[in-house]
Amino acid sequence: MSGAAPASVTGKVLALLGAFDAAHRELTLSELARRSGLHLSTAQRRAAELVAAGALERGDDGRYRVGLWLWEVGSLAPRSSSLREVALPYLEDLYVVTRENVQLAVRDGTEVVFVERIAGRSAVPVLTRVGGRFALHATGVGLVLLAHAPTEVLDEVVASGLTRYADRTITDPEQLRRVLATVRRDGYAVSPGAVTDDAVSVAAPVVGHEGRVVAAISLVVSLADARPTALAPVVQTAARAISRAYAGSGLH
Amino acid sequence: MSGAAPASVTGKVLALLGAFDAAHRELTLSELARRSGLHLSTAQRRAAELVAAGALERGDDGRYRVGLWLWEVGSLAPRSSSLREVALPYLEDLYVVTRENVQLAVRDGTEVVFVERIAGRSAVPVLTRVGGRFALHATGVGLVLLAHAPTEVLDEVVASGLTRYADRTITDPEQLRRVLATVRRDGYAVSPGAVTDDAVSVAAPVVGHEGRVVAAISLVVSLADARPTALAPVVQTAARAISRAYAGSGLH
Repeated sequence: MSGAAPASVTGKVLALLGAFDAAHRELTLSELARRSGLHLSTAQRRAAELVAAGALERGDDGRYRVGLWLWEVGSLAPRSSSLREVALPYLEDLYVVTRENVQLAVRDGTEVVFVERIAGRSAVPVLTRVGGRFALHATGVGLVLLAHAPTEVLDEVVASGLTRYADRTITDPEQLRRVLATVRRDGYAVSPGAVTDDAVSVAAPVVGHEGRVVAAISLVVSLADARPTALAPVVQTAARAISRAYAGSGLH
Repeated sequence: MSGAAPASVTGKVLALLGAFDAAHRELTLSELARRSGLHLSTAQRRAAELVAAGALERGDDGRYRVGLWLWEVGSLAPRSSSLREVALPYLEDLYVVTRENVQLAVRDGTEVVFVERIAGRSAVPVLTRVGGRFALHATGVGLVLLAHAPTEVLDEVVASGLTRYADRTITDPEQLRRVLATVRRDGYAVSPGAVTDDAVSVAAPVVGHEGRVVAAISLVVSLADARPTALAPVVQTAARAISRAYAGSGLH
């Protein structure tokens, strides 16, 4: 949101909250003003209101941080926290059985948002973090979500250009369409060396009401010792268990 | 926040967000207006702005929910998500080793807020949920956090009355003071049958900069087969590992 100059007060409040990101978790007042596009005095006044409500917190060093209250409200979001709550036991099972990286993600527009991640201690390093976003076409979970998204989403993804992140990222629209067809046919996605050269992701869909794909889970393992065909049924089984629990949870 | 009639626009925005809680994750417009203390037309206008920004989401059924964007911002809160990120591998270790309920919590005023929870599948049922709050005096993590809080916090907790939740909840202020002294001396808390009759919590502090207690972790196990003295060093060891990782993470 940096650089904008929001006119409404609601816009100003949201701009202050949107000034924070993973690389900017603590901001001085002047950073907060600059990144939210507000005048210093406006930023200070609104930030004080947000601190009073617990939406922001101010440290002894005078820096602003996202507050515990906002985290609590955020933790009520059905598409992330509620889904996560339903899925977590099964993600833990997947972790205990494989000791690999386990991920849970949803689609937001043309991006994938990681809702949960259990990082294997000795597993291959992954770039994702909880609350982080990534390109749909480069991740296993993203391919699953894209394969089951409206065609407009695929058109938009292709139109905005398929960025290369690693040696084997899919950058050709025709290849992407073929891969997505395979994902729909097989019920899982295998994405080798697409985010980082040395990792492969095996992903499967979480299905909600009326067969709608609401999320995807994946195992991310080292490409060197990967056995994707052996991992696919493991991921699919966990994904089906989550789908079953999700259907029973009353979430939409 | 329900029932209030916030005057400032910032207050109105926060009242709309605060209208949601664990028992009210989906609200109709009229529920949203009533719980936020706003006029229907004001609630509708502000809610539309929040939906446009992704802070709220509106389902096909017309109901409002907390949006993915707000969850993402909330996930940047250092006192919850960042702490959780640092702690999670060690909480997972604790779960793998014990297969019991594992909890991570921080203090907010006179309450404990649960930041993470790994529920053992066959472990004793617990009442807590991530983002949920509970009384300090009744939980193992709460006793640890209270033992290391300023004395004003204890005074406030005692003054507001020590609610009984189960057979062995501490309700006598003098007993509470004695227990807290023991917690400080031993470096861990054991809280049997205080939240539910059949569970015991064993908790230890996570220590940050300058020896400040920033969080607490616990194992909650069945009172029937509990061996708290055997579990205490397990919890303490994990808590020390988290403290070490926390110190290295640059968090305050």
